Amino acid sequence: MQTVLGIDPGSLVTGYALVRQSGSQLECRHSGRLALGSGDLTARLTRLFRELDRLLEAHAPGCVAVESAFHARGARSALVLGHARGVVLLAAGLRGVPVAEYAPREVKMAVVGRGGATKEQVQFMVRRLLPLARAPRADEADAMALALCHLHRARLRLPPRAPRKPAQLAALWRAKAARR
Amino acid sequence: MQTVLGIDPGSLVTGYALVRQSGSQLECRHSGRLALGSGDLTARLTRLFRELDRLLEAHAPGCVAVESAFHARGARSALVLGHARGVVLLAAGLRGVPVAEYAPREVKMAVVGRGGATKEQVQFMVRRLLPLARAPRADEADAMALALCHLHRARLRLPPRAPRKPAQLAALWRAKAARR
Repeated sequence: MQTVLGIDPGSLVTGYALVRQSGSQLECRHSGRLALGSGDLTARLTRLFRELDRLLEAHAPGCVAVESAFHARGARSALVLGHARGVVLLAAGLRGVPVAEYAPREVKMAVVGRGGATKEQVQFMVRRLLPLARAPRADEADAMALALCHLHRARLRLPPRAPRKPAQLAALWRAKAARR
Repeated sequence: MQTVLGIDPGSLVTGYALVRQSGSQLECRHSGRLALGSGDLTARLTRLFRELDRLLEAHAPGCVAVESAFHARGARSALVLGHARGVVLLAAGLRGVPVAEYAPREVKMAVVGRGGATKEQVQFMVRRLLPLARAPRADEADAMALALCHLHRARLRLPPRAPRKPAQLAALWRAKAARR
């Protein structure tokens, strides 16, 4: 049995999903959206941390799965995303829960079978795989897909993706820029 | 008497300085550099948080002063900086210490008197103002300058700068992009 907490951090809403696998059975134990409300960035991040810490304490997942950050477009979105993502990694780190990260393409490939799948296709497949009574909201579906991607890799006995070191991130970024 | 913790977060090294003002007397009580060493991003951020939390607990500053993040260039540097900065804001938020943020130009203006001052000029003036026996390292000098900028504003009875909300940040970013 394995429990994974998928987290899709955002500047305004962070989706999360706790997915459990026992044998070939998949089940979403709990999912939701943390709306960080109003207030300055410090207040938002503090609220996000407290909510995540509560989830990690209550459900003790074996792993946290997040999207690799390296796909953000533009300095502004990267910056805002970086703040929320830093808090997610920290919440896991302080509780000693390992973090695995996956590129959007990998997640879509694992769930839909196509790296270029649409949001709707991801929502459809997530609902079938788990299975859910009703379609999840987009942030929740993304968090579920991240957890499913991690479990899928575990089933194929692929090693989980550890977060990249800043130096590796820089090399990837340069390679991506060179391809443009 | 007022104590301010200036923090200059970076992906590899974070400088900090605890500056105290009593009357017209300025004094750097403590300063240093947190080298986050090797390991993945989660381990680095966890170490950064623990060190900052220890500083906040030990010295109980009245305020944390950081550079406003909106000046990062490029998606990659913004992203890495965002992670570290998120952890700094969170550490202050969890301890209930207010955060003030200042643009690099404001900091240089407050310390050197010129918004376009060089790193060396900042280091020189920080050493004179505090006064220090020897020149501080660049990361420490930046943290000291941030604390001095905050105290300078307080002396002029200007309100401290609260961190901007994401929506304000977006508007500023668009204005900046339009000016290019």
